[in-house]
Amino acid sequence: MEVFKQITEVQQKAQQVKRDGKSIGIVPTMGYLHEGHLKLIQEAKNENDFVILSIFVNPLQFGENEDLDAYPRDEERDLQRAEEHGVDLVFFPTEQTMYPHPLSMEISVIRRADVLCGRSRPGHFEGVVTVLTKLFNICLPTNAYFGMKDAQQVAVVDALIKDFNFPVKLKPIATVRETDGLAKSSRNVNLTEVERKESPAIFEALQYGKKLYDSGECNVSNIIEKTRQFLEERTHGKIDYIELLSYPELENVKVIDRQVILAIAINYKRARLIDNIVFSEAGVTTG
Amino acid sequence: MEVFKQITEVQQKAQQVKRDGKSIGIVPTMGYLHEGHLKLIQEAKNENDFVILSIFVNPLQFGENEDLDAYPRDEERDLQRAEEHGVDLVFFPTEQTMYPHPLSMEISVIRRADVLCGRSRPGHFEGVVTVLTKLFNICLPTNAYFGMKDAQQVAVVDALIKDFNFPVKLKPIATVRETDGLAKSSRNVNLTEVERKESPAIFEALQYGKKLYDSGECNVSNIIEKTRQFLEERTHGKIDYIELLSYPELENVKVIDRQVILAIAINYKRARLIDNIVFSEAGVTTG
Repeated sequence: MEVFKQITEVQQKAQQVKRDGKSIGIVPTMGYLHEGHLKLIQEAKNENDFVILSIFVNPLQFGENEDLDAYPRDEERDLQRAEEHGVDLVFFPTEQTMYPHPLSMEISVIRRADVLCGRSRPGHFEGVVTVLTKLFNICLPTNAYFGMKDAQQVAVVDALIKDFNFPVKLKPIATVRETDGLAKSSRNVNLTEVERKESPAIFEALQYGKKLYDSGECNVSNIIEKTRQFLEERTHGKIDYIELLSYPELENVKVIDRQVILAIAINYKRARLIDNIVFSEAGVTTG
Repeated sequence: MEVFKQITEVQQKAQQVKRDGKSIGIVPTMGYLHEGHLKLIQEAKNENDFVILSIFVNPLQFGENEDLDAYPRDEERDLQRAEEHGVDLVFFPTEQTMYPHPLSMEISVIRRADVLCGRSRPGHFEGVVTVLTKLFNICLPTNAYFGMKDAQQVAVVDALIKDFNFPVKLKPIATVRETDGLAKSSRNVNLTEVERKESPAIFEALQYGKKLYDSGECNVSNIIEKTRQFLEERTHGKIDYIELLSYPELENVKVIDRQVILAIAINYKRARLIDNIVFSEAGVTTG
């Protein structure tokens, strides 16, 4: 496994791999790898000749009052896990390498961004698409792997690739969960013991909301309100949002007549957790 | 020579060419090819295994009151000239192909854009970098060729490539001129007979301005004012701007202590012409 810190060495390697007729899978991460990431790596291994893992805690996608400094880091363990899982190249740049001077260009995300996490995290998806534009150009992936836990991110990356015609195929991968249902996240380590015990209620609430639809509740407002009550009774975390939108367009719907996402964000003391469930009007769960 | 209208056929062809270990030169144009374009094609032929010419009158880079409808078109002659000059592939998309739905992303140019043409053409460079981002991702060029007549465009593309790490080398090519000095432009056909006779004064004014510096005039304001007087005495065209800035940063300078650009834009009845001269503090002309 090669570990590169410089852009040009990664770009040259990627160009060589492409010239050899090989496919490249990229797994973009902010490190502190958990099973969710490892599943992305495994899928990338299955479908590509060469797998690049990028590890970069991208300051551009953190808001002023967000957890950039609290974001957990463990370089040594990350590299060990990457090697164990057959990653071919780790791109591990510094902030100075990725943003050596103020950018002359800014990308704004004008659709799919002003709902869910985007509403409470202004500038977040701008940071995401900026770093991904750079990573796509540096790593030249054939396929790009993202977890469906960040379903809005998947929707925004889908728009990024389509709008700008990146020669990259988006590969959304189903959320990996703890045995009690909590979605795997690097931020879970920041939960208190009590918060951790309550946190499975997030996924339970999503399943409850979908069950309401399965049982004949068609009104979106009712589903959201009942899901909120369900969740509030089971955790002290502060609900940031519960939303039900079309997917991947992320537009408001009154009734469920197409594929939708039911999504929750909840603020604990030192961790903000998100989770979601995507299902069709026939009630079939995807992602 | 292949002529493609669809994005996927160009992208697949470009991927095949790259897999074959060949370099790709792109010459992005809005058609109505003149000798300036042909020189770009020739340079691309000299330096690459495979040359793609794109022809697309990009509506995104025209302002509301600009000459989108007046922009000259001659598909048949363009294709004939491309073939004669050894272009391998012409990408000739429709507006519907390039912008099939409203974009979810917008790129803003926050440096190098609020001077020269950018000042009087709000949104112009946003349109340029958007279409180039798409063209780079579709055509996968090794080298990209641009005429120095649009020196600000060259500076903005330089920033686009560096900011987003496109694996593309920028190749600025010196302006091609008529025998009387007028810079070649698709828009020259829209000049009246009288305007055409006066128009060599633009390049003469640029040379006059540089001569002032060569003769010891260091004050930028004085150079600009004397150049303006020189030009106003020789043409009825309405001067949009005469500016002298650092290049390629396009920042204001008081004295000439680094590479600079002296640039002119002038409005005639049905054509807006631009021209420039780039020279170092030692007085050496480049581009």
